[in-house]
Amino acid sequence: MLKVGIVGGTGYTGVELLRLLVHHPKVSVSVITSRSEAGMEVSELFPSLRGMVELKFVDPADAELDSCDVVFFATPNGIAMQQAKALLDAGVRVIDLAADFRLKDAATWEKWYGMPHACPQLLSEAVYGLPEINRDKIRQAQLIANPGCYPTAVQLGFLPLIEAGVVDAAHLIADAKSGVSGAGRGGGGGFGFSEVNENVQAYGVPRHNHIAEIEQELSRLANATVQVVFTPHLIPMTRGILATVYAPLAHDLSEEEALCLYDEAYSDAPFVRVLHEVFPQTKATLGSNYCDVTVKIDTRTRTAIAIAAIDNLGRGAAGQAVQNMNLMFHLPETTGLCFPGVFP
Amino acid sequence: MLKVGIVGGTGYTGVELLRLLVHHPKVSVSVITSRSEAGMEVSELFPSLRGMVELKFVDPADAELDSCDVVFFATPNGIAMQQAKALLDAGVRVIDLAADFRLKDAATWEKWYGMPHACPQLLSEAVYGLPEINRDKIRQAQLIANPGCYPTAVQLGFLPLIEAGVVDAAHLIADAKSGVSGAGRGGGGGFGFSEVNENVQAYGVPRHNHIAEIEQELSRLANATVQVVFTPHLIPMTRGILATVYAPLAHDLSEEEALCLYDEAYSDAPFVRVLHEVFPQTKATLGSNYCDVTVKIDTRTRTAIAIAAIDNLGRGAAGQAVQNMNLMFHLPETTGLCFPGVFP
Amino acid sequence: MLKVGIVGGTGYTGVELLRLLVHHPKVSVSVITSRSEAGMEVSELFPSLRGMVELKFVDPADAELDSCDVVFFATPNGIAMQQAKALLDAGVRVIDLAADFRLKDAATWEKWYGMPHACPQLLSEAVYGLPEINRDKIRQAQLIANPGCYPTAVQLGFLPLIEAGVVDAAHLIADAKSGVSGAGRGGGGGFGFSEVNENVQAYGVPRHNHIAEIEQELSRLANATVQVVFTPHLIPMTRGILATVYAPLAHDLSEEEALCLYDEAYSDAPFVRVLHEVFPQTKATLGSNYCDVTVKIDTRTRTAIAIAAIDNLGRGAAGQAVQNMNLMFHLPETTGLCFPGVFP
Amino acid sequence: MLKVGIVGGTGYTGVELLRLLVHHPKVSVSVITSRSEAGMEVSELFPSLRGMVELKFVDPADAELDSCDVVFFATPNGIAMQQAKALLDAGVRVIDLAADFRLKDAATWEKWYGMPHACPQLLSEAVYGLPEINRDKIRQAQLIANPGCYPTAVQLGFLPLIEAGVVDAAHLIADAKSGVSGAGRGGGGGFGFSEVNENVQAYGVPRHNHIAEIEQELSRLANATVQVVFTPHLIPMTRGILATVYAPLAHDLSEEEALCLYDEAYSDAPFVRVLHEVFPQTKATLGSNYCDVTVKIDTRTRTAIAIAAIDNLGRGAAGQAVQNMNLMFHLPETTGLCFPGVFP
Repeated sequence: MLKVGIVGGTGYTGVELLRLLVHHPKVSVSVITSRSEAGMEVSELFPSLRGMVELKFVDPADAELDSCDVVFFATPNGIAMQQAKALLDAGVRVIDLAADFRLKDAATWEKWYGMPHACPQLLSEAVYGLPEINRDKIRQAQLIANPGCYPTAVQLGFLPLIEAGVVDAAHLIADAKSGVSGAGRGGGGGFGFSEVNENVQAYGVPRHNHIAEIEQELSRLANATVQVVFTPHLIPMTRGILATVYAPLAHDLSEEEALCLYDEAYSDAPFVRVLHEVFPQTKATLGSNYCDVTVKIDTRTRTAIAIAAIDNLGRGAAGQAVQNMNLMFHLPETTGLCFPGVFP
Repeated sequence: MLKVGIVGGTGYTGVELLRLLVHHPKVSVSVITSRSEAGMEVSELFPSLRGMVELKFVDPADAELDSCDVVFFATPNGIAMQQAKALLDAGVRVIDLAADFRLKDAATWEKWYGMPHACPQLLSEAVYGLPEINRDKIRQAQLIANPGCYPTAVQLGFLPLIEAGVVDAAHLIADAKSGVSGAGRGGGGGFGFSEVNENVQAYGVPRHNHIAEIEQELSRLANATVQVVFTPHLIPMTRGILATVYAPLAHDLSEEEALCLYDEAYSDAPFVRVLHEVFPQTKATLGSNYCDVTVKIDTRTRTAIAIAAIDNLGRGAAGQAVQNMNLMFHLPETTGLCFPGVFP
Repeated sequence: MLKVGIVGGTGYTGVELLRLLVHHPKVSVSVITSRSEAGMEVSELFPSLRGMVELKFVDPADAELDSCDVVFFATPNGIAMQQAKALLDAGVRVIDLAADFRLKDAATWEKWYGMPHACPQLLSEAVYGLPEINRDKIRQAQLIANPGCYPTAVQLGFLPLIEAGVVDAAHLIADAKSGVSGAGRGGGGGFGFSEVNENVQAYGVPRHNHIAEIEQELSRLANATVQVVFTPHLIPMTRGILATVYAPLAHDLSEEEALCLYDEAYSDAPFVRVLHEVFPQTKATLGSNYCDVTVKIDTRTRTAIAIAAIDNLGRGAAGQAVQNMNLMFHLPETTGLCFPGVFP
Repeated sequence: MLKVGIVGGTGYTGVELLRLLVHHPKVSVSVITSRSEAGMEVSELFPSLRGMVELKFVDPADAELDSCDVVFFATPNGIAMQQAKALLDAGVRVIDLAADFRLKDAATWEKWYGMPHACPQLLSEAVYGLPEINRDKIRQAQLIANPGCYPTAVQLGFLPLIEAGVVDAAHLIADAKSGVSGAGRGGGGGFGFSEVNENVQAYGVPRHNHIAEIEQELSRLANATVQVVFTPHLIPMTRGILATVYAPLAHDLSEEEALCLYDEAYSDAPFVRVLHEVFPQTKATLGSNYCDVTVKIDTRTRTAIAIAAIDNLGRGAAGQAVQNMNLMFHLPETTGLCFPGVFP
């Protein structure tokens, strides 16, 4: 059994990690930290875990993370970069669910995230944990930068088109719709039910920091400079992201050919389902690790329109982190993740 | 035109008062106060009012409330009781949307609300502003205690049965389901969308402070001691309260006879609609000042079951306050309130 | 591996059974029938199952149910009673998720369900599948009447109070709030999103047919005639039932003593969690087989108020059916059901 | 008082027209037709109108529409084109809320709508009822083609950019998110609460028929061929459309300059609010006739991103129809529409 630690367990990503790891046949969660809730039963904060999780939150200062096989950081940006080095030196694998290690270039990171990077020397070593582009590297990694929720959906939408070189990658547009849980447990004000319900709005336009990792990874894939316009929206649901992404066609391409590209690109991806006749819907992925994706070709305007659906807390965060853990420890990629979503 | 002041205008009750008073043909809102948002445009906080409300929030210290004809307190409990006296002395009518003046007995008030009452001498003078039981007194009142949202629905549910003396008023049960806006704009934590959505729970059982005014007023009506078990629930909607109330029959009563009692009791109530063939639903009252009510007789168990639906911010707060203002100033009771709800 | 058949697999109960049985380590679903969708891939109708369920819907006429170990009926009322006899005669165990075998008395059944019973001779043999009252009988049963969703929550709310004889069981009230999935996949009209969203209403008052099984089972438990007023409500959520149930105290009872009764009554029930300090919320049970329950004592009115939360499709239908299957086949009761709900 | 008729009053557009016209000081609704519900009280179908609307639905065959001053068609596509001619000949003004008269070219209409046009001779006479581009023509019109809900939001988003010629109008993208009421009252299946709630999906890609009127009107405005990629999405809310529209910059343009273009373009539009510092949100327009709009400039990618929010049943249908009626009858444009949305 792998001994697992979770740093920062009081957020929605933390409870989702626990939900998945409780299922997982090869894992035992040995410690979960929280500065604010140290001493509290995990199941008191998250009643869904009552009867299943006996852990208490531990103050980070008292947590024996060094003895873990792997530590997940379910913390805000800026925490993992302070602690990862020591853990790695102690032989512990690290999976950061925040953004600390997602960019290769420290200056770019600092520009998008607005703070100095505490550990730039690890940036080159960290592996960007999107299995569909980095499966082999993840298997060798000590440190995983788990992708952002939006970037997961957006990249899985664009990937086959970019790889095949059939679109003009300098003029991409990604319009994403997210449930509110991505904003975290804090809630309050703008995330209160009364104002989110029966409402939709954009935010962070035009400079959401998830743009950086999308452009970095797609540029690497395209072997050229990719630019993407990215517009996130908050819609009245708890979980789920739907990314609708637009790319001008660089070559003639029928819808059938386009779907073929997707089928091929994801032929060995156990958690990507290419849909041929229906549109992806977030509800079909709720609670699961799947990404459902399809592509449409608008021949009138010579535009490829791909649509990708994920659970932002599942494939967009905790699920993908567990998938990465499986790969790192040479377990079958789907271990503990092989269950359908909750529908309806 | 009546000159209106609003104290504490940054909550949902405040924005609802503004929405209604903007419509109102006999009113001009001259001042709205907020300690925290003084100086801010009202329409900046509440974008729905943009282009319609030119006011800025004013610090309470700078607000010239004395020159108003009527002042609404849309404040937390404990504020109006400190300021009402001076305003009344200056000849200003006062309508308190909080609980400060709802109970006749200061000791009872202090027991339920857990603080000393700052102005017990006004308790006897204040008129409980439920038009269906106090229409004439409201017309003479200087100080109105606007009923709570739950008590409005619960009392309008029980009223005809109690008045007619056909039920055992010592054993009443009221089970109420409320939208989240009743919890106010603060939101946060438990009121965040992610945890309210797709969820329902009870709270405050068995001692919600709205019990006090329900028992006081129904006891007065029954000329006997009324006791009520009251269970409020939070359900995933923004506006609306549905109260399902249960009373053991003291006499044989058919459903037809029961409905007759409701028709009679509300024959001159412009904002109560007695439904004969369908069940009340909160959505039919959303944004309006109506209460929809019906009654069912369970002959098997000899129980009367009445169901009342309101908009908690409308008839349960701001709408009823405007209705009371109309009565106080001898305007037609329906002035500015005569529009249907938003459906669907 | 148990060979499982599902009759009537296109409803929400059917997809939930599949979701659970896909997980289940001791089961293989070999056939799923549908008259209307025969020939269609199950995963085409339910995209959440894509990649996990390879079955097609089979016309009932072509389904080889006789070779199954157990057959679940996820059909409307009136179907299982026509087919159960033949299956039982062939040695197949039957679990009916509809109401056909829930009542012991055929005349009572016909009164509440408004149709003749096709197979009254099986009524005495059928075991009412609420494990908390019938665990041992279920272990011996060939035919299980899986309880209704509301009755599950209502009975688990009342059970410890009735068993202990501390309440007046002739005057019970159950006020239940349900998500919309209980109304089935048909949807349409009144179950369309536009009219359910931001709305709450009661229905079926005062004669919902779930009353019959509640009174039958609680009367048996009380060894006396139990009567219950039952009011179901539709609230704007997909899954979940919260039952708030009221019983007049027959004896003095503190809240602590009451909670003790619940702890004891459910000490060996793996899927009932007695909450001592927080209120049950449906979201904590979503997607799981748990029932969360608590009890409050209103000493002012001498009333016990118990609150029970379940997932109507989980513990209220498919989850409980799988739990019953486990018991019937002498598997550990929790096999395949031991995972937490999805939160938030 | 204008005598108003409504054809096809049982849909959500019909009830919204009634809600608005009940308010309207210069209008009396004299007849409302329905084939299916003839004889039923309007308020029985729409309980929100109880106590306010005394009308019954009338069979179209019995409706005396000729004596009306104006008739609204709140019918599916294909009805108004059969009846408009006779009404116009009788001197009745006609406002069609469906698509029958939105396109100038019959062949184009038939291509997008898949049926022959019954009255192509009226296409040139009909005025496209978007006041911001056709205010003067509407004032002279006998026949109004009320714009579609999506086209209203999309065009109000693009309009100032196109008019000013600052973007490349051959490469426009519009990504729209709509509440479910746009799908009408039928509901059922895919529009049932259980499957819409906690879900988002695209549909109709890439050939939604609203594209036709968007391209027609924007091309006219641009004096050049405009092409638009249009992707509608269904999100879990009842009312509201948010259109996020993308246009490549043809010239350098700062955000400040862009906002100036919007301020100017809408300086005399009483129902367009240009937001400078916050993002439009549909909830701020709910129940009102407002369109809230802003524009962002992504200088990195040289893209203008405009965002427009409306109530799909208000400004996107019935509200705009009433605004057009006001203009046609030389009433102040805002008559009966001058009230804020319901917030929260």
